Amino acid sequence: MIGVRAAVEVKPDNIQEFIAIAQELVEASRQETTNISYDFGKLADSETSFAFIERWEDQKALDQHMQTSHFTGAVAAWEKHLAAPLDVEIYTF
Amino acid sequence: MIGVRAAVEVKPDNIQEFIAIAQELVEASRQETTNISYDFGKLADSETSFAFIERWEDQKALDQHMQTSHFTGAVAAWEKHLAAPLDVEIYTF
Repeated sequence: MIGVRAAVEVKPDNIQEFIAIAQELVEASRQETTNISYDFGKLADSETSFAFIERWEDQKALDQHMQTSHFTGAVAAWEKHLAAPLDVEIYTF
Repeated sequence: MIGVRAAVEVKPDNIQEFIAIAQELVEASRQETTNISYDFGKLADSETSFAFIERWEDQKALDQHMQTSHFTGAVAAWEKHLAAPLDVEIYTF
C-alpha cells in the first residue's frame, strides 16, 4: 500500500475557491477502484495550510490517479489559488 | 474526522530497532475502537525518513490515543533512535 500526504499552502483570499475544487477532487478520487482512502482537510492552528491524506493499493494506482481528468483538471484549476507549490510525500506501507 | 501525519527521522544505524517499535505501535493502535486507520511506512527515495499516517474519529480519540501505554511506551522506547524530534501535522477532515 502507498500513503500520500500532499500539503498545500493557499492564498488567504482564495480559500473558498480552493476548497470547492479540492472537495470535487476528493469525491471523484474516492470512486477510483484502487483508492483505499482519500481525505482533505485544514492543518490545525492554520487558516491557509491544507493537505490531502491518501492511501492507494500501490504505486501503479497512484500513477493512474495522477493521469485522471479529475486530478489534472483540479491541479490546473487550483494553480492560481496556491501560495506555494504542492509539497508531496509518498510513503510505502 | 482527524488526520495525522507524524514524520520521523531515524538515525541510520538504528532503523531496524525503530521499525520494530513502530510496528508494535501500529498493531496496538489499530485495536483502539476510535481508530479509523493507522499506517506506518518509509518515505520514497529515503532510507531514514518514515511517517505514521493515521485517521481518528475526532480529536478526543487522538488525545486518548496519546495517553495509552502503547503510545507512551513507544515514544519512550524510540527516543534514542531518532535523529530529530517527531514532526506532527494534524488535519481536520
